[in-house]
Amino acid sequence: MKKIYLDNACTTFPKPASVPAAINDFICNHGVNINRGSYSPAYDMEELVYNTRLWLCQLFHFPDCKNVIFTQNVTMSLNMVIKGLLKPGDHVLVSSMEHNAVMRPLVQLQQAGLTFDRIPCTKNGSLIPGEAEKLLCPTTKAIIMTHASNVCGTIMPLAEIGAFCRRYGLIFIVDAAQTAGVLPIDMEAMSIDALCFTGHKGLLGPQGTGGFIVTDEMAAQMKPLLCGGTGSISHTEEMPDFLPDKFESGTMNLPGIAGLHAALAYIHEAGMDVIRQKETALTEQFLRGLASISNLRIIGKHETAGRTAVVSVSACALDNSTVAVRLEEEYGILTRVGLHCAPSAHKTLGTFPAGTIRFSFGHWNTAEEIDTALEALHQICH
Amino acid sequence: MKKIYLDNACTTFPKPASVPAAINDFICNHGVNINRGSYSPAYDMEELVYNTRLWLCQLFHFPDCKNVIFTQNVTMSLNMVIKGLLKPGDHVLVSSMEHNAVMRPLVQLQQAGLTFDRIPCTKNGSLIPGEAEKLLCPTTKAIIMTHASNVCGTIMPLAEIGAFCRRYGLIFIVDAAQTAGVLPIDMEAMSIDALCFTGHKGLLGPQGTGGFIVTDEMAAQMKPLLCGGTGSISHTEEMPDFLPDKFESGTMNLPGIAGLHAALAYIHEAGMDVIRQKETALTEQFLRGLASISNLRIIGKHETAGRTAVVSVSACALDNSTVAVRLEEEYGILTRVGLHCAPSAHKTLGTFPAGTIRFSFGHWNTAEEIDTALEALHQICH
Repeated sequence: MKKIYLDNACTTFPKPASVPAAINDFICNHGVNINRGSYSPAYDMEELVYNTRLWLCQLFHFPDCKNVIFTQNVTMSLNMVIKGLLKPGDHVLVSSMEHNAVMRPLVQLQQAGLTFDRIPCTKNGSLIPGEAEKLLCPTTKAIIMTHASNVCGTIMPLAEIGAFCRRYGLIFIVDAAQTAGVLPIDMEAMSIDALCFTGHKGLLGPQGTGGFIVTDEMAAQMKPLLCGGTGSISHTEEMPDFLPDKFESGTMNLPGIAGLHAALAYIHEAGMDVIRQKETALTEQFLRGLASISNLRIIGKHETAGRTAVVSVSACALDNSTVAVRLEEEYGILTRVGLHCAPSAHKTLGTFPAGTIRFSFGHWNTAEEIDTALEALHQICH
Repeated sequence: MKKIYLDNACTTFPKPASVPAAINDFICNHGVNINRGSYSPAYDMEELVYNTRLWLCQLFHFPDCKNVIFTQNVTMSLNMVIKGLLKPGDHVLVSSMEHNAVMRPLVQLQQAGLTFDRIPCTKNGSLIPGEAEKLLCPTTKAIIMTHASNVCGTIMPLAEIGAFCRRYGLIFIVDAAQTAGVLPIDMEAMSIDALCFTGHKGLLGPQGTGGFIVTDEMAAQMKPLLCGGTGSISHTEEMPDFLPDKFESGTMNLPGIAGLHAALAYIHEAGMDVIRQKETALTEQFLRGLASISNLRIIGKHETAGRTAVVSVSACALDNSTVAVRLEEEYGILTRVGLHCAPSAHKTLGTFPAGTIRFSFGHWNTAEEIDTALEALHQICH
């Protein structure tokens, strides 16, 4: 049976053909390390890494590419930013819609004396910004917030929260796991101090890539969570205090970065707005179709405004897992069922602990695939 | 000009052809995430990851593959192990030959109240095990040691130090960056509690892979340095306390692990002992040839016993960098010059701060390439 992949919020699939091709070319023909060999093939690869940083700066509107730090994934980025910055006694605010990549580091730091509060959201996952001010206290240092929910796609008002952070002298950290490469992000206009992203979702690159972009001011306040060889100031056993070396120890995932570079080139050529329009059209088709299926509840926003191409539903008469298994076994439709590593979000949405069935679309999905999914849901849930 | 790659201690090159092929197959045909989707393609990939853990257990003689943790590189592994285990007030011992992947985390932890001492080594990098006992104090918790120097290849007596650790109730942490896939490592016989490895050197896999294997007893004493979604116990905001999930947050480098899996299959088929014999023969040829070149000093052991295929030399009449640049420009020979992210090792060897020119061989190098390198050194340094 032909598979229909509707789990793009987990990882986008397929990738542009240029992505594996670039990785293959790197491993077969270049293969060297950077910042470590003083020979010319190493310099060629340094240029590719440099250009990848440049493109990310362009995509996220940040002026200086030395501030782009590569990591293995957005979880590693968030840990480096959160644990590098926060100290016992600090207080932070998050939305009530965060993924465990934000919540689990914070809960761990609680044991060392960090405190946090959740800015409440409505039943469809929309932030209630007016509640933020009431939660401020003298030790509040930062707001950490997802750009869009990985459960139901609801988009957070980053510009508004960025302005709020500026007004109160707070640091603004954004988890762009679901939106990098999908929605416009302007670090300067949105007053974002640290933007954490993954390479293998909206950016269409391979798993094993990610990073963060951080302002000089914030970087100066951070200690490196990971220390080691950087190929720079090798005479000392202390970490360099300059970027990106301060936060990039050890050998990088160079094949992965070569793949990410190719993915960024693809997005640049295809146009992020064109990709987004396609995904929005599929989402609209799906939401419209869902409205006529009884025994299914849409979780989150019922319209395409203010959301990404991630749609959660809950079956009324059947167990969600049963629906997901039948979707795969009988129709070849791949979704993701459960709590999506985001218990706080599901509590907000009223779907804890049962969870939801999540459908997430990519621009390679087709209108026919959406029709098949709708027909399948109709058959299973009627 | 044809390049002669003699920088295998930095990253091995080329990789077996099956490595990029496996990565390409994963990205083009599978591409899904694991532990997150409940559909069958995800289970296929979980099996490949599981088998990679199994093979690493077999290679390093460890009984349980749930104790294999994947990371981005050995630096990340060492940070996770060192910072996960050690607390302010603890004391540790290291050799005086460590890489900054060990020293920089320790120096950072010093500020929080950790102390450490270096077990001295001879001028050729050999550990003086009798000195270890004198450095013990009531708070000594662990010994952290490289298996072989990344500067001069000298091998450390792991079994002896492992027995010493058992005698004194110390935890034994090994940095196998230079030896995984090169030398036999038996975690049980050598009493190793945590073995940190990289995937892209002796294991012949792609950059961006690495990991550590840790005993249950030690894992229970460690806190996770990185926290986030694991696809398990997603109803809580606390990290799982079971392995490998406790230390594996966020999306893994699955293309990289597919490549590492293929590399391990290659080593299994080719035979680690056969690969080692080839590298030792090349090293012997090189060392023998060096002896007849005046104005060059071999740094470290002059014979093949007790060393890997990493050879450092120092030019007597010329600057080392000049020699390295001429090796590349005039002969296409790629080496690595400088301090190799190991200032402590160079201080031990008497080559600080000038550093050395490092030649490191892989089993794909040929006797002709060694002859070319020797002839080049003869011409440049005569």
